[in-house]
Amino acid sequence: MSNNTFDSLTSDDSTQNKRILTGIKPTGIPHLGNYVGAIRPAIESIQNSDHEAFFFLADYHGIIGCYDPAIIHESTKAIAATWIACGLDPERVTFYRQSDVPEIPELAWILNCSCAKGLMNRAHAYKASVDINMEKSDVDPDQGVTMGLFGYPVLMAADILMFNATHVPVGRDQVQHIEMARDIAGTFNHRYKTLFTLPSAVVDNDIPLLTGLDGRKMSKSYNNTIPLFGEHNPQISSEKQMHKAIMKIVTNSQLPEEPKDPDDSAIFEIYKAFATPEEIAAMRAQYAAGIGWGDAKQALFDKINEEIAPFRARYEELMANPKELEEILQMGAEKARRHSRKQLDKTRRAIGIRPLAKLK
Amino acid sequence: MSNNTFDSLTSDDSTQNKRILTGIKPTGIPHLGNYVGAIRPAIESIQNSDHEAFFFLADYHGIIGCYDPAIIHESTKAIAATWIACGLDPERVTFYRQSDVPEIPELAWILNCSCAKGLMNRAHAYKASVDINMEKSDVDPDQGVTMGLFGYPVLMAADILMFNATHVPVGRDQVQHIEMARDIAGTFNHRYKTLFTLPSAVVDNDIPLLTGLDGRKMSKSYNNTIPLFGEHNPQISSEKQMHKAIMKIVTNSQLPEEPKDPDDSAIFEIYKAFATPEEIAAMRAQYAAGIGWGDAKQALFDKINEEIAPFRARYEELMANPKELEEILQMGAEKARRHSRKQLDKTRRAIGIRPLAKLK
Repeated sequence: MSNNTFDSLTSDDSTQNKRILTGIKPTGIPHLGNYVGAIRPAIESIQNSDHEAFFFLADYHGIIGCYDPAIIHESTKAIAATWIACGLDPERVTFYRQSDVPEIPELAWILNCSCAKGLMNRAHAYKASVDINMEKSDVDPDQGVTMGLFGYPVLMAADILMFNATHVPVGRDQVQHIEMARDIAGTFNHRYKTLFTLPSAVVDNDIPLLTGLDGRKMSKSYNNTIPLFGEHNPQISSEKQMHKAIMKIVTNSQLPEEPKDPDDSAIFEIYKAFATPEEIAAMRAQYAAGIGWGDAKQALFDKINEEIAPFRARYEELMANPKELEEILQMGAEKARRHSRKQLDKTRRAIGIRPLAKLK
Repeated sequence: MSNNTFDSLTSDDSTQNKRILTGIKPTGIPHLGNYVGAIRPAIESIQNSDHEAFFFLADYHGIIGCYDPAIIHESTKAIAATWIACGLDPERVTFYRQSDVPEIPELAWILNCSCAKGLMNRAHAYKASVDINMEKSDVDPDQGVTMGLFGYPVLMAADILMFNATHVPVGRDQVQHIEMARDIAGTFNHRYKTLFTLPSAVVDNDIPLLTGLDGRKMSKSYNNTIPLFGEHNPQISSEKQMHKAIMKIVTNSQLPEEPKDPDDSAIFEIYKAFATPEEIAAMRAQYAAGIGWGDAKQALFDKINEEIAPFRARYEELMANPKELEEILQMGAEKARRHSRKQLDKTRRAIGIRPLAKLK
């Protein structure tokens, strides 16, 4: 993927050395939509550049909406294994678990003191919660809103500013959070000392949004996903899980031999995300020639599997050997903390927190 | 001071082993009002008990309202020196600087996710700020409110719950914060695992509030204080600074020899905070007999100085030797972190944050 498809929203995209930061919330097992929409483009964009990159498992964001410790733990593991299996190179990239960097929540507190509450009042996610409550009678507008939900843009600012990230790839709905990080950084820099780089949101308009089994957007919350590597299940292999899900994609009732409209087909839409332009053209012709839905699904499975199968063995190896995964994360934490310790120390000194005297 | 004078506001004061926690905000140089109202009673109450005690310099609270790094740093030093000079035994008490315990802001983030935003909306300090803004036209109700000011009761909850403190001596205006810490602890305990002790607010109704030089309550914000150890000044000794301030106490224009009303005299009021019942009775007689204001002030100075002079040398020694002070604070941090590391580890495990595998 070329960088031309990126749309840098809040600063000029000059020739400065980029430092890219991406957070991944561990509150579920990755599905094909995550792969196509986040994992693959992120890994490709890093492999094809020489920018510095920080990727982290945002478990301290995960606990905002998920109170099940088993889900937090298991999906941290599955997501770490997924990214490594899909080709993220932990030697090339600083790949760490947020909670292994205690400097981040400490910085978040410091940034709280340079963040106007009014800024958080205007956060889209918070306002959406309030709007839902306002529609009901006798419900407090803040019903169900925790200080975690209300204040997480400050934690996100700490995630970004800690490493002086210059570019943060996000979805359109997250652009506001990057603007908030800029605002907080600006306040701190002005009040104390210029320590924080103002980050830019980067939105990639070319990343496809996959359709799910039922024709709606593929999303865990709709329960309409195609698993990437599937759940661990001794009865049915990961490959078969994917095959089974693909066979469940809802189609219309057109018979084999009837010409079909590819642009109204979820199968074709997902196929496009994995095939070359030539393959896409050939499949388009097959639709016109009346390919049966079963054959179209099988062709889709084969196409996806061609790309995913090589990753699957590595994924299963990592899931069976969490020690290797933990070692990778510890290596990442060490690399991350080389930055975060320095950045936090500078920040503390700027606000007046430093030892009273040097000991030995 | 006997414990009978304590008024434990939120739980029964049973025979459980008490763990007392006191925070001190480092945003100014201690004055006589601080000494009489906070330092002396806290030190006495600990010396006369065998309860466990945690005293900390709340610098991460200090930065909420004070953006001057020099003031944060200098008052951390002066306040640490003051408490030690006044007799706080750092071997007996765990005496630490909040910012030396990184587990505290980390716990604060976790507790944010178990704290309803609605709870913070009802905080007196926040509501007072909003009320002031509401009186003006065209001003946002949250004008000037940072996320630090809005969310600091959660940091305070982390300060308390980190050490499972059972009793927190506070002024009446702080009782609500202890109730908030109980609420947050209750939510976490119920949702995950019972890890946090519900603390009780302890209000001592017998602690005198000193009158300042101008007849109002002695307070830094009124600029009417009598210095405890004074500012460092090679031109005028700390003792002379105190003498000079006392001589400035505002009196009425009654002449020497005229009988005076002790109960309408700031001099007499402050005298009472330092003298024995017999001495107080004798001074009352001198007022009736028409003691001159100058003599009354001199008697007050002598009385205060009798108590403070022995501490003054130690204070000056510590201020001149911050290395000793830093060593004391580091010893305290080590003791505090023996608790906080364990408590944070338990908390993290409860929410699902733990290593994926044990590495050697």
